[in-house]
Amino acid sequence: MKMNKTQKWRILLPLVVVALMMILATPVFAQDGGPGEEISDISLSINIMWMIIGGFIVFFMQAGFALVETGFTRNKNVAHTMLMNMMVFCIGAVGYWLTGFAFQFGAVNLAYPEVARAGVIAGEWAHSPVTLGDWTGLLATPLLRIGQFGIIGGSGFMLAGIGTNVGILAFFLFQMVFMDTAATIPTGSMAERVKFIGFVIMSLWVSMFIYPLVAGWIWGGGWIQNLGRSLGLGNGAVDFAGSGPVHMIGGCVALAGALVIGPRIGKFNKDGSANTIPGHSISLGVLGTIILFFGWFGFNPGSSLGFLGGFRDLAVIAAVNTLLAGAAGGCSAMTYMWLLGPTKKPDPGMSVNGVLAGLVAITAPCAFVDGWAAVVIGLIAGVLVCLASVWIEKWGIDDPVGAVPVHFFNGLFGVLAVGIFANGNPATAAWNGVETPVTGLLYGGSTQIIAQTIEVVSVFVAAFGLSYVFFKVLAGFNLLRVSREVELQGLDIPEMGVVGYPVDWEPSNLEDEVPAALPGTATKKAFGTAD
Amino acid sequence: MKMNKTQKWRILLPLVVVALMMILATPVFAQDGGPGEEISDISLSINIMWMIIGGFIVFFMQAGFALVETGFTRNKNVAHTMLMNMMVFCIGAVGYWLTGFAFQFGAVNLAYPEVARAGVIAGEWAHSPVTLGDWTGLLATPLLRIGQFGIIGGSGFMLAGIGTNVGILAFFLFQMVFMDTAATIPTGSMAERVKFIGFVIMSLWVSMFIYPLVAGWIWGGGWIQNLGRSLGLGNGAVDFAGSGPVHMIGGCVALAGALVIGPRIGKFNKDGSANTIPGHSISLGVLGTIILFFGWFGFNPGSSLGFLGGFRDLAVIAAVNTLLAGAAGGCSAMTYMWLLGPTKKPDPGMSVNGVLAGLVAITAPCAFVDGWAAVVIGLIAGVLVCLASVWIEKWGIDDPVGAVPVHFFNGLFGVLAVGIFANGNPATAAWNGVETPVTGLLYGGSTQIIAQTIEVVSVFVAAFGLSYVFFKVLAGFNLLRVSREVELQGLDIPEMGVVGYPVDWEPSNLEDEVPAALPGTATKKAFGTAD
Amino acid sequence: MKMNKTQKWRILLPLVVVALMMILATPVFAQDGGPGEEISDISLSINIMWMIIGGFIVFFMQAGFALVETGFTRNKNVAHTMLMNMMVFCIGAVGYWLTGFAFQFGAVNLAYPEVARAGVIAGEWAHSPVTLGDWTGLLATPLLRIGQFGIIGGSGFMLAGIGTNVGILAFFLFQMVFMDTAATIPTGSMAERVKFIGFVIMSLWVSMFIYPLVAGWIWGGGWIQNLGRSLGLGNGAVDFAGSGPVHMIGGCVALAGALVIGPRIGKFNKDGSANTIPGHSISLGVLGTIILFFGWFGFNPGSSLGFLGGFRDLAVIAAVNTLLAGAAGGCSAMTYMWLLGPTKKPDPGMSVNGVLAGLVAITAPCAFVDGWAAVVIGLIAGVLVCLASVWIEKWGIDDPVGAVPVHFFNGLFGVLAVGIFANGNPATAAWNGVETPVTGLLYGGSTQIIAQTIEVVSVFVAAFGLSYVFFKVLAGFNLLRVSREVELQGLDIPEMGVVGYPVDWEPSNLEDEVPAALPGTATKKAFGTAD
Repeated sequence: MKMNKTQKWRILLPLVVVALMMILATPVFAQDGGPGEEISDISLSINIMWMIIGGFIVFFMQAGFALVETGFTRNKNVAHTMLMNMMVFCIGAVGYWLTGFAFQFGAVNLAYPEVARAGVIAGEWAHSPVTLGDWTGLLATPLLRIGQFGIIGGSGFMLAGIGTNVGILAFFLFQMVFMDTAATIPTGSMAERVKFIGFVIMSLWVSMFIYPLVAGWIWGGGWIQNLGRSLGLGNGAVDFAGSGPVHMIGGCVALAGALVIGPRIGKFNKDGSANTIPGHSISLGVLGTIILFFGWFGFNPGSSLGFLGGFRDLAVIAAVNTLLAGAAGGCSAMTYMWLLGPTKKPDPGMSVNGVLAGLVAITAPCAFVDGWAAVVIGLIAGVLVCLASVWIEKWGIDDPVGAVPVHFFNGLFGVLAVGIFANGNPATAAWNGVETPVTGLLYGGSTQIIAQTIEVVSVFVAAFGLSYVFFKVLAGFNLLRVSREVELQGLDIPEMGVVGYPVDWEPSNLEDEVPAALPGTATKKAFGTAD
Repeated sequence: MKMNKTQKWRILLPLVVVALMMILATPVFAQDGGPGEEISDISLSINIMWMIIGGFIVFFMQAGFALVETGFTRNKNVAHTMLMNMMVFCIGAVGYWLTGFAFQFGAVNLAYPEVARAGVIAGEWAHSPVTLGDWTGLLATPLLRIGQFGIIGGSGFMLAGIGTNVGILAFFLFQMVFMDTAATIPTGSMAERVKFIGFVIMSLWVSMFIYPLVAGWIWGGGWIQNLGRSLGLGNGAVDFAGSGPVHMIGGCVALAGALVIGPRIGKFNKDGSANTIPGHSISLGVLGTIILFFGWFGFNPGSSLGFLGGFRDLAVIAAVNTLLAGAAGGCSAMTYMWLLGPTKKPDPGMSVNGVLAGLVAITAPCAFVDGWAAVVIGLIAGVLVCLASVWIEKWGIDDPVGAVPVHFFNGLFGVLAVGIFANGNPATAAWNGVETPVTGLLYGGSTQIIAQTIEVVSVFVAAFGLSYVFFKVLAGFNLLRVSREVELQGLDIPEMGVVGYPVDWEPSNLEDEVPAALPGTATKKAFGTAD
Repeated sequence: MKMNKTQKWRILLPLVVVALMMILATPVFAQDGGPGEEISDISLSINIMWMIIGGFIVFFMQAGFALVETGFTRNKNVAHTMLMNMMVFCIGAVGYWLTGFAFQFGAVNLAYPEVARAGVIAGEWAHSPVTLGDWTGLLATPLLRIGQFGIIGGSGFMLAGIGTNVGILAFFLFQMVFMDTAATIPTGSMAERVKFIGFVIMSLWVSMFIYPLVAGWIWGGGWIQNLGRSLGLGNGAVDFAGSGPVHMIGGCVALAGALVIGPRIGKFNKDGSANTIPGHSISLGVLGTIILFFGWFGFNPGSSLGFLGGFRDLAVIAAVNTLLAGAAGGCSAMTYMWLLGPTKKPDPGMSVNGVLAGLVAITAPCAFVDGWAAVVIGLIAGVLVCLASVWIEKWGIDDPVGAVPVHFFNGLFGVLAVGIFANGNPATAAWNGVETPVTGLLYGGSTQIIAQTIEVVSVFVAAFGLSYVFFKVLAGFNLLRVSREVELQGLDIPEMGVVGYPVDWEPSNLEDEVPAALPGTATKKAFGTAD
């Protein structure tokens, strides 16, 4: 297939006219500072406000992950699990600032073909979101590409050269918290046995390299994103908010980590059957799930990267579908467990994972499908997560919080769901630079599913494969798993120096108490600490 | 009273001119895509962004309810109470999508009289919010009406026919989370003894039928909303954010449920006196309260359904009054308990409920009253909730978390407070299609209080009455209350299969441990799980 | 230095042109209701929406403070600590409404010199933020000034006279939640031994007087803010979001309180060495930290008080720097403790405080520094908080949750950091009415650091000094510290009447149970509570 000179990244054709007018109109009005210039400024503010508030809400998901993972693991590992979930953000933010953003988006504006003019009226294709201002000349340096296929970016390390381009700065913030979602997933599958130093190195692995590499292929102007133009496969790989880039990458790392680190002591019996190891707090786990659901309203609708015209419309559609699919996933998982589960009860743990599964599965297709399809996707996801939880135990994989069933399996399902359920909404024409709208099998689109399948396979091969090797190396240096003694004792004291829920410290010898010489004690008599 | 051809739903006269100009100006500019069209698009974006972010924040209230209800009930029912609070959203969302939205708003655009043209310049009255775009021809099919009184809507089932009208989709999301607030209230009053299956059916009852029916009368173009035009009673029932539709409906269902299900074993003594049954976690309860307070900033200000001109002004007034009333409610309840309560201490449980009471009471009047009135309303609410808690115990009602004192009594008070404190702000002229502004007794409005009283009576009769019958039927089928044995044991194991806070599982026989054949174990030696 | 007639508060020169055009253009368009008037209304909406959503998010920080303080204190004081953190908002809101806002901002619009015309094109100086509409004639009454130096405001008590000026109402909400952050800090340093009545009075002290007084000097048009115009010291004291006004004031009160109240029983040994008194829940503490981090995205970026043009740009820069500094603070504190701490482990408590320290330190400079500087500031803050924690113990100060190391030391550092790292971004020209941009030592600004130092010294002298006297008086009336017996027992039962985590109440004598005569019990047989 020949190059298409109008290819754009996430640009909707109907918006091109308006955007073009704005750009053309601006110089005219700019001379007298008239409404045109102000409207242009207002439009940029609205788009950035939407995206950055979305980013804040996504940040808050870190609290949700912390609670889900800690709630569904044991008391003796609370401090360890909880701190991993806070530090993964801190370490990841620094790592993503150092190299991650540059690898993922450093060539987004010049990956394929070689034109940096920000979108829209460019004679040739550029990637920069038209909603976020003018990126001319920035993020336009590939580190590696094969012909016209973008492989990895090479500018924007430590935000150098970005200056005060606030569109890019806001975009950095938004993408950083997305990366963090991927990075925090493996802490769940390796919980209760991973060394803290291993976790730190894993956080750098995800934030600095593996996530940026693979997610860049789909969102950073890379080769999977361009399968529509290059091979005529639908609109290329289409992923609105990241069932693939975020959840499946995170799920692949989680799967590789769980495989290499091996199951917790006692998880499996001689006959290969698995024991249930309950977490320590349903309260925290469910609270975390509700927080994650809330966060998904930043995650999915925020991924429109704008809130005017068609971008607003897609954002609202994404919000409603997110609500419906998450709810449906909870309902179907609860019902499945109630009718067919081992306890024949509405199991809290699987209900929680059903909600999360529905949310993960709708993440890629959220802006492309009808409400009924969102419900169907959610219902399927809720059952899929129950089945996948059984499968991985049969395969001998121990995943304490269900990270693999939720994020890997339903991320995979979500990517494919675009190829099945996308309704050919005309507003999505020009997605990834292909003129036809995003259309799935049920609406007559025969090749979109192929692009989605390639996304799934590529993500798996790269993210799982490379991470498997990475974890093997970590394990080889004895940096991955705590000793048997530490695991049995619980990781909190040996690794962190404190337990999660200390019993109240009390003075051991009150006779020895001598605070008399200390500041403030001169007034002690006055306020009556009798002595 | 004769029909008024300019009646509108929540339309402020001062805005009509601006909106009219925008509509008239649009075609002119549209030809050249000039500022007019862009401004129209920007305005829609601002309004929807405000409302949908408000909706997200309201969603998060579900976490608050979960924590308040679970924190103020016992350890042995943690998993049950927590999961109810998550699943009420999942079930409710599906139920509201199936029928609730259609019943509540299916005729909002053609209830009375028969004109669907979206507001403003329509020759006759239409209900669609002018802030949310053009709804022409949509949500205009009543299922039942008596003459010109809207009783129940009949279009929009499963969002069918709504297409990609994003104003309506965003409105659906916002109204869905409001419904959920009503649906989650009864789980508090029936906690620690309701069967999970009974809770599921109750969730469907509220989301699919009783809330949509009654709330539609006040917000969906129904007969109570139109008492101003039909009977000359002020501006008809006025309720900015739902002291009546949300909190009092929820409180009525909670009251009916508590009455039918009966008190917990041991709550009352032979002499009719009540025992205090403390909850298990003040931390979770107070955390939940702060989350709810936060959520109220989406709930009340978001109910302006727009953020331009007068809508913005009312939203800001609502925000400040919400802050003041919630704070004042906490202060007065704490002080009341400290001075007059049984323990003569600043009781945490009642302080929490004082905050919530202040918030519930300000919900209806939040945009209509001065700051000092918000403080007064909050102070009264904080005392009222203390008194009501005593009253219901005297009546033999056991309400573990105070859902009835908070939501029923203060919802009722809040509705009446509009009729007392509404300050006649000119910006509220044309509310519900009546030209005079919303004016309470203290400012010379003599009939508004009558409309508010009719709202209160109607909500009580319908929501309490029908729900009482509903719960009786549930009880008749033995679907409502767990057995005595289950209640004494705690509902968690019998109903959910897990306890809320499991003790750490440990391997029972370490000699039996044989993970050797499992994936990943080949590397075990490498990372030193000595054996 | 002579008076500069164009001095403004937080006005950016580049915006003056645009704002001027808007004001000039408005009357022209207003005649026909054209785009000019609409754009003016839209601009106000965007600015207020940004600020008020920021305010909501800052409110939510109260949950974070509650969890951090409660999580890092003991079980026996849970109800007491948790309720303090909820009630400090309730009491503070009322106190700030009564007098605080009036003292802090009551003369912001006429402090120096005597011109109330809202900013920008005023011939003389006025303070009102140009982003928030027209404040003409409002908040223009000083209670006390020395010559042209604003000392304390005198209008706006109980919002009287503000009417429906929504710019001011939204500003009140935003400033109220900022005050509350300062007020909640001392509850941490005095936890586990302060009387609840003492806490109540302290809340009034902070909200009604000391915070408004001192913060008004820096933000309310006061003398420190004007050191640029009056003495030629850079741009006067510059503090984007309040390392000084909020955190250092709160830290000063916390320090004074901790000094006067004295250490907890058993904290220090005879030899002056300190015992570690672990809190009761790492889960709650870390959760609270993540919530606070989230809240900081309202705190810092929201402090732009607008989201158009340069205000938007500064807000986005603030957001990215907040993210980077918080993350870097967590990394450096964790690493410091791991390498050099007493346990040689990644200590959760100090990692948490490292994150908070980074956030506090970046609060003042967030909009003025480059990304790399934010990382450096965060790294320093993370180490500083570890060192300061050791210092204060050596000085005999017992601060259970590290309020002084986090808020006092890093607030101080953050204020100075502006004078060191501010990059002279041209967009900050005209800050505080000085034409040159905000420029620190590293970029050749030699006097900014002097203004910042004066801020630090003034805040310390006033906030610490007056609060020290205040607490001495409280102690003199025996209102500050609980008795020795109460402290040893735990404050929950004696002070609050409940414990934080009650054990499940069970009916003591099931034979005595007689609910038969109570409502609802008629149906008991139907649903099977067998008897």
